[in-house]
Amino acid sequence: MRKSTLTLATAALAVPGMAVAQETAEAAGAAATDTVFILNSLLFLVGGFLVFWMAAGFAMLEAGLVRSKNVTMQLTKNIALFSLAAIFYYLIGYNLMYPLGTWSVEGVLSGVWGTAVLEAVGITADQADDYSYASTGSDFFFQLMFCATTASIVSGTLAERVKLWPFLIFTIVLTAVIYPLQASWKWGGGFLDEMGFLDFAGSTVVHSVGGWAALTGALILGPRIGKYKGGKTVPMPGSNLALATLGTFILWLGWFGFNGGSQLAMGTVGDVADISRIFANTNAAAAGGAVAALILTQFLYKKPDLTMILNGALAGLVSITAEPLTPTLGAATLIGAAGGVIVVLVVPMLDKMKIDDVVGAIPVHLVAGIWGTIAVVLTNPEASLITQLTGVVVVGLFVTITSAVVWLVLRSMTGIRVDEEDEVNGLDMAELGMEAYPEFSPS
Amino acid sequence: MRKSTLTLATAALAVPGMAVAQETAEAAGAAATDTVFILNSLLFLVGGFLVFWMAAGFAMLEAGLVRSKNVTMQLTKNIALFSLAAIFYYLIGYNLMYPLGTWSVEGVLSGVWGTAVLEAVGITADQADDYSYASTGSDFFFQLMFCATTASIVSGTLAERVKLWPFLIFTIVLTAVIYPLQASWKWGGGFLDEMGFLDFAGSTVVHSVGGWAALTGALILGPRIGKYKGGKTVPMPGSNLALATLGTFILWLGWFGFNGGSQLAMGTVGDVADISRIFANTNAAAAGGAVAALILTQFLYKKPDLTMILNGALAGLVSITAEPLTPTLGAATLIGAAGGVIVVLVVPMLDKMKIDDVVGAIPVHLVAGIWGTIAVVLTNPEASLITQLTGVVVVGLFVTITSAVVWLVLRSMTGIRVDEEDEVNGLDMAELGMEAYPEFSPS
Amino acid sequence: MRKSTLTLATAALAVPGMAVAQETAEAAGAAATDTVFILNSLLFLVGGFLVFWMAAGFAMLEAGLVRSKNVTMQLTKNIALFSLAAIFYYLIGYNLMYPLGTWSVEGVLSGVWGTAVLEAVGITADQADDYSYASTGSDFFFQLMFCATTASIVSGTLAERVKLWPFLIFTIVLTAVIYPLQASWKWGGGFLDEMGFLDFAGSTVVHSVGGWAALTGALILGPRIGKYKGGKTVPMPGSNLALATLGTFILWLGWFGFNGGSQLAMGTVGDVADISRIFANTNAAAAGGAVAALILTQFLYKKPDLTMILNGALAGLVSITAEPLTPTLGAATLIGAAGGVIVVLVVPMLDKMKIDDVVGAIPVHLVAGIWGTIAVVLTNPEASLITQLTGVVVVGLFVTITSAVVWLVLRSMTGIRVDEEDEVNGLDMAELGMEAYPEFSPS
Repeated sequence: MRKSTLTLATAALAVPGMAVAQETAEAAGAAATDTVFILNSLLFLVGGFLVFWMAAGFAMLEAGLVRSKNVTMQLTKNIALFSLAAIFYYLIGYNLMYPLGTWSVEGVLSGVWGTAVLEAVGITADQADDYSYASTGSDFFFQLMFCATTASIVSGTLAERVKLWPFLIFTIVLTAVIYPLQASWKWGGGFLDEMGFLDFAGSTVVHSVGGWAALTGALILGPRIGKYKGGKTVPMPGSNLALATLGTFILWLGWFGFNGGSQLAMGTVGDVADISRIFANTNAAAAGGAVAALILTQFLYKKPDLTMILNGALAGLVSITAEPLTPTLGAATLIGAAGGVIVVLVVPMLDKMKIDDVVGAIPVHLVAGIWGTIAVVLTNPEASLITQLTGVVVVGLFVTITSAVVWLVLRSMTGIRVDEEDEVNGLDMAELGMEAYPEFSPS
Repeated sequence: MRKSTLTLATAALAVPGMAVAQETAEAAGAAATDTVFILNSLLFLVGGFLVFWMAAGFAMLEAGLVRSKNVTMQLTKNIALFSLAAIFYYLIGYNLMYPLGTWSVEGVLSGVWGTAVLEAVGITADQADDYSYASTGSDFFFQLMFCATTASIVSGTLAERVKLWPFLIFTIVLTAVIYPLQASWKWGGGFLDEMGFLDFAGSTVVHSVGGWAALTGALILGPRIGKYKGGKTVPMPGSNLALATLGTFILWLGWFGFNGGSQLAMGTVGDVADISRIFANTNAAAAGGAVAALILTQFLYKKPDLTMILNGALAGLVSITAEPLTPTLGAATLIGAAGGVIVVLVVPMLDKMKIDDVVGAIPVHLVAGIWGTIAVVLTNPEASLITQLTGVVVVGLFVTITSAVVWLVLRSMTGIRVDEEDEVNGLDMAELGMEAYPEFSPS
Repeated sequence: MRKSTLTLATAALAVPGMAVAQETAEAAGAAATDTVFILNSLLFLVGGFLVFWMAAGFAMLEAGLVRSKNVTMQLTKNIALFSLAAIFYYLIGYNLMYPLGTWSVEGVLSGVWGTAVLEAVGITADQADDYSYASTGSDFFFQLMFCATTASIVSGTLAERVKLWPFLIFTIVLTAVIYPLQASWKWGGGFLDEMGFLDFAGSTVVHSVGGWAALTGALILGPRIGKYKGGKTVPMPGSNLALATLGTFILWLGWFGFNGGSQLAMGTVGDVADISRIFANTNAAAAGGAVAALILTQFLYKKPDLTMILNGALAGLVSITAEPLTPTLGAATLIGAAGGVIVVLVVPMLDKMKIDDVVGAIPVHLVAGIWGTIAVVLTNPEASLITQLTGVVVVGLFVTITSAVVWLVLRSMTGIRVDEEDEVNGLDMAELGMEAYPEFSPS
């Protein structure tokens, strides 16, 4: 989403209805402006806690889709990555993403030296004008959750074989530098934004970034032992599909905050009506993705595949994220359905290429993310296909290259993959000495 | 809940305090009316995402109460039914439920031909008057979740033996036609509403409808193999009570949106105070139902029964749903407690009648739903017992007959029950080829 | 949080910005005041349902950390304790906590005789003035959830050995009398409040109270059979770490409502900006606690310990609860990190003292609660160390003594501990006759 810590004057131009609200405020005293500020901040707070909840969704989805011998490790990675993202986005990322003043290289560099700073306690309405059209704290809270989401995407793909600490160091670089820097190009007012690149809530800026980082990691890390034998893909079913389904429902719920909150304002009739459209469309796209995967797996394999349906719903959500506002309900359903089709087709393609993506995050977040970014041109007349593709490619190149450098440095310094024996025995006992389901371990 | 896409003029009459707000608005400029519109829409959005969350609650509850060999199937049904409900309520149901203009047969028929349409992007405050007192998108989002809830109720009762696709086709008919049609009689301004039938958030319109459809299905489908042997009921304990408890807590949480959102407005002091009453009463009824089941099972069986306590809480929630506003906290607790008693008594009665309801949805949603509808007369002086009973019976007859026709047609065309061997082996391997807990399968 | 059912005049003094809002309201008609009332109530409702959700978090955390033979019992206790808290806080606790008029012994005693009463249905804006600056129903709903949280803390420590009914009777006394009485000293305007004791959202008033009650119970109840053998602590790993992690994420989410809602007002720019600070700081503290436990367990044991990381996050949350507003993001992170360190150090200390705390609730809620209460002096210049310590000690003495009396009376009357054989076989079969995972029982 666009930078929200604009000055009030700028915000009045950027946000539809804001100028009107201000005029009304002048007629009616300060109350109206106050209400707008409060409602905008409230949107960030509610949106933010819903996106926070997605961290739990990723943890459950991934814990359900790995084998039981790696569940404790997957849970550990998920809670640790979120916590590190919170700290490093505060220390570096937030200021890097929203450089002071106009976007410029100097502005971005200046962001490196400062931590995120909230407004003072108990500001008055007058002081609020000095800040922005919503509270800085609510904006930071909301933006942080998007950064953390990016990191959550990576952990699923690399599960069951990546070492804990190198993975966490990668997470730090991703959330402190890689994510904020490219996000600044769009949401910090940088060159992608100036070009007219459109990405409402982050099909490219969030989801494809997580996806590219995951893909790069998967290529450098290699597949799990025994996954590809003599040209055949060996199924390694997840240990707990109830957990995976729970995770999907959590993500679906959180996505209302992800997309709806990215409207960035709720203080006018137009904004709240737009948020309502976004909620309805987001839901429609998820449903479209799930149903497409249901029907397609029935058709292709004669049996519906639950993990494909779950990933289909998620791919539907990713697909609508670049433009959840302009589509009609029908268009949203179809855009999401295309996401579901993508998942069913891309998962076996990756296996053919021996790219081992444990939870299917690459089809869901990267491929459907690209699709969603392109699909903006179908419903938003302001979008240009060339510009959308440019954004996809620029972000893709940047994230792939920087991620590759980090993974390769880590590989040469500490190694990034657990020992063969540890991988076979499971990371839980080998690296953590703690099983997730100690009483139910398979013989 | 009553139709919310009224014109502003009508709404001013229907919603207490609204006229006052409008007058104030005239004095204070447009701001006040805007705020009312925003807050009303916000209620639908927050209420809506809470009711969405109930879909996850049903999925977890049901996955926890079936045997492990049927868990993947139960999860698949739940995510699929929600997604199909989203699509078919959009394609047909919404317009059927809220016919244009005054309710009439022609109005309803006209609804069949049109899909749900959201308001335009970025409407202005003036345009908002043309729409309603809240955004259409938020209303659609909220109403959809109620429709989906109805379908979720059915899947639990018929678990472990109904075929996937016939069940999903039934879901389509239920959410596209059966639910919306009867809902229009009350919430679309139809004859039940004109008669004075009271059902605040849907003890009858939602819960009993799901319950009747489930009962009809259970009768036509027959009990699971081995459930009733020589006059005895064979216990078939659920595979994961932690999941079932989680599902119950999710439903409890979602119910604040279900009942609170059904106030349909939050833009006045009276409305928000009423919503607060509803939240407090909803919680009290759930607590009453849980404690009643706790005490009664201790008394009857000398051991508290967790599944009864969970269903007791849910029955308490269903019981208060027809009138969560007028009761005192004490009355709400007692109305809910009666729901808990109902569950404990009706579960064994159904078993005596060899009606096999896997998760107890019939006592919880149908019997407690009827009780809740009748209980309105205890606290709301505007309610008439005759009218309440009429509503219960009319809806019951309609849903039972239409459901029976659909189930019987499906039975004759495709069959609705899996093969005996598949049922014994479990639906997961037979129909889906995928176990939910593949590493922990019981020997 | 401070009592919120003040009259409007008092509230205007107590809540920053309120007086301004009222003046504006006078200029602009009643609308502005209405909006403030609505937004304040909305904060309680959203905050309240988030804190409700914490009940599910405790249930999942505890069910995940006990052995599988005690899971059904742990789930039963959690849903039963919440339900009983709802009933007895309504019957006695709420009025005890908020005595009418100025706090006095007579006022408190008067509270014993009355149940909580909500405002009338459909109040007008004028009537709202007679009530308070937010709806009574929303305030009751919010306060109830805090009371229930206190009870949830106790159940984890005493798991796997305490009898169901004595535990539930203790819960009734705790939620009807012990919690409300001491809470009135701070939040009901009593002597701790007059002394200047600061406890924003309840590090002492909620968390340490649960912790003291748990500690007292653990001392009287004794450790589980086999936990301490020949001076050694025998590990008894939890049965389901995925569930425990889910519970932690749920609690983390709910805490935004716990701390954010304790701002008690959202109707002014200053209030919503403060709530935003609180959300951001609460998240930072949790992250700090998790990362501190991650690093410290790696350092001490060479392997990160997931249960420590989970408890570290929770201890971070408890630590920031006494003052989530004044710290900077950096200070909040460090205050939380200290909480994480506390958990890692105190858990083995308790084991050395043979105090058997099954889930680690004493380090998390009691020790980190004391730390958080003291830490207020680091960031809030209005806090006095002596006063903070006085609050800790006074509440600690009161809760320890009253809890001890209740536990000892229960022990002498009914016994509080299950038979040795039942404990060894597990409480699920012995007391409930129902396993949580019947198909996966360990051989």
